[in-house]
Amino acid sequence: MCQHCDYTIHGAHHHGWDHSIPPAETVAPGSRLHFKCLDSSGGQFDKDSTTADVSHLDFGKINPVTGPIFVDGAQPGDVLKVQIDAFHPSGFGWTANIPGFGLLADQFTAPYLKIWDYNPETMAPALYSDLGRVPLKPFAGTIGLAPAEAGLHSVVPPRRMGGNLDIRDLAAGTTLYLPVEVEGALFSVGDTHAAQGDGEVCGTAIESPMDVEITLDVIKGEKLAFPRFSTPGPVTRHLDAKGYEVTTGIGPDMMQAARDAVSGMVDFLGRTKGISAEDAYLLCSVCGDLRISEIVDQPNWVVSFYFPNVVFE
Amino acid sequence: MCQHCDYTIHGAHHHGWDHSIPPAETVAPGSRLHFKCLDSSGGQFDKDSTTADVSHLDFGKINPVTGPIFVDGAQPGDVLKVQIDAFHPSGFGWTANIPGFGLLADQFTAPYLKIWDYNPETMAPALYSDLGRVPLKPFAGTIGLAPAEAGLHSVVPPRRMGGNLDIRDLAAGTTLYLPVEVEGALFSVGDTHAAQGDGEVCGTAIESPMDVEITLDVIKGEKLAFPRFSTPGPVTRHLDAKGYEVTTGIGPDMMQAARDAVSGMVDFLGRTKGISAEDAYLLCSVCGDLRISEIVDQPNWVVSFYFPNVVFE
Repeated sequence: MCQHCDYTIHGAHHHGWDHSIPPAETVAPGSRLHFKCLDSSGGQFDKDSTTADVSHLDFGKINPVTGPIFVDGAQPGDVLKVQIDAFHPSGFGWTANIPGFGLLADQFTAPYLKIWDYNPETMAPALYSDLGRVPLKPFAGTIGLAPAEAGLHSVVPPRRMGGNLDIRDLAAGTTLYLPVEVEGALFSVGDTHAAQGDGEVCGTAIESPMDVEITLDVIKGEKLAFPRFSTPGPVTRHLDAKGYEVTTGIGPDMMQAARDAVSGMVDFLGRTKGISAEDAYLLCSVCGDLRISEIVDQPNWVVSFYFPNVVFE
Repeated sequence: MCQHCDYTIHGAHHHGWDHSIPPAETVAPGSRLHFKCLDSSGGQFDKDSTTADVSHLDFGKINPVTGPIFVDGAQPGDVLKVQIDAFHPSGFGWTANIPGFGLLADQFTAPYLKIWDYNPETMAPALYSDLGRVPLKPFAGTIGLAPAEAGLHSVVPPRRMGGNLDIRDLAAGTTLYLPVEVEGALFSVGDTHAAQGDGEVCGTAIESPMDVEITLDVIKGEKLAFPRFSTPGPVTRHLDAKGYEVTTGIGPDMMQAARDAVSGMVDFLGRTKGISAEDAYLLCSVCGDLRISEIVDQPNWVVSFYFPNVVFE
C-alpha cells in the first residue's frame, strides 16, 4: 500500500463517462490517491487464456476505470493538475488482436492473444516468446474527467477532457493537465499498460492490472482546449539505444499513410526476422512509434513507423 | 573536399523531377559521391535578408536538387541503397513563414524570416535571438529518385521514390532505401537542413546550404512500396535531456488534431515564455515533434506535439 497516500480507491469501477455517477471519494486539492486499477478486459483474461478466449470477450465489461474523484473547488473552466507519481505493476499482461479493432483491422481479421509474464520487481524487458524482448514503461491508458454533456458516453474514444488517451508518455513523473467541465472535475483512471508504442497500432498494449498513485490539484485561470503534459526527462531512452528500423507511408491521407507505414514494418519484420504477421503486428503495437515526419509538403504527407532494434539485442 | 569520394557533383542543379534530365554523372554501384547542395531558396536569401525579402521569392527557383546520378545496373523494381555518410554544414541558415504554406497557414498569413548564424565546426546549438538555443542535426530534406511517369513533376510533394521527404532522421549514419522506377535510378539530393522537428510544421526548417557525402548501391530482389531507413543509434538525444512540454489535439481528423496540437503549443510558449506567435511557430518547426499517440480508439485520434525543454536551458 501507499504510505504517502491520503486515500485508497478500490472497487469503485465504472464503465464509460457520465457525470451523474456518484463520486467514490471527495478530496481536497493536493490530495494523493492510490488507485487499484483493473486491466482493460476487466479481468476477463488470465495467464491461462488463449486465442479462443478472445471470441468470448464481453464488451460490456471492457475498459473499467476507477473513480470518479470529486476534487473540492474544481469548477468548469478550471484545469485539473494530475501528477502521476508511481505505478505498482502486477507482472501479468496480455496483448490481443480483436477483430474489427486496430489500424490494420482489414488485414488482421482473426482473433489473436499473447499472454505476458513480466517481473514487476525488476521490470526487465518482457520476453515475447523467443522473438524479442520488449522494454517496459508503465502508464495509464485511460485517464480523464467527466464530460459536461449529460448521459453515458462510451469509454472508447478520448475527448478534450481526456479519457482513453493511450499516450505512452503518461508515465511516472509526468504531470498531466486536463480541462474541467463539471464541478469537482470527477477524475477516473484505468486501462493500465506495461508498455505501448506511439499509436497503439493493433488496438491493444501490454494490458496489465496495476496500482497507480496520483496527486490531484486544481489550477485556476488557465484556458486549456485539449490536454497537455510535461515529462520530467527523456521519453524514449528505454527503446532507442540500438537505433531503429523505419518504414514510411506517403500520400494525401494521413490515415492511409500510417497504415502503409505499419504494413511495411509487418512485412519487413517477416522478411528479415521470420516473424509471423500476427506476432509482428502485436510487437509493433507494444513498442513501435508512429511519427508524422512531414505535414506541409502538399498534397503528400509522410508518416513514419519506428521499430526499436533493442528488441532483438 | 572529400578524400574518400569517387566523384564531386557541383553545378548540376535541377528543379523538379523528370527522368529525361540528363545524368550529371554515371557511377558504379558502391561509389561514394560528394554533393554540393544549395539551400531550398536556391541562394535567394543571405545573412542580410529580412522579412521584406520573403515577398520577393521567385518560386521558380525553389528547392533545387543536385544530380541526377545514373547508377549502373539499377533497374525498375530494384532498391537503391543510399548510405548517408557525412554533412559539411555552411553556418548560414534561414527559417521562414511563407504565406499559404505551413500547417497553420490560415493563422499565419504574413511573411516572416529568421536568419541563423551557427558554428559549422562545433555545431553548438544555434541561438534564436535571446529566446532559446536549438540543437542541430543536419540532414537532407529532399532525397530521391526520378519517377517512371514522364514529364516534369513538382519537387514539393514527396512520392514513393522519395523526394521532399523532410524526414528529420535522414542524418549522418542513416541508410535510406528507395524503390527504383527507372533505369539507373537517377538519384538527386538537396534542400539541406541544419535542424528540423518531426512535421516541419511552419513549412521550413533551418534551411542551410551544405555539402553531403553519400554512397550509392543497388539491391536486387527486395520489393519496396515506400522508402524505409535504418538509423545507427538514438534519434532524439540531442533534444530530450530535459524532457518535453507536450500539447495535444483530439478528434476524428488527424490533420485538425495536428493543427490543434501545434496551435496549443504556440499559445503555451506565448503564455509561459512570452514568445511571440510568429517566433513560437518557427521554433516549433525547427525542434518540436509531431507524434501520433493513438490511432485506434475510434472515432477520435490523438496527435501530440513535443517541444524540448533543452531549448530554454
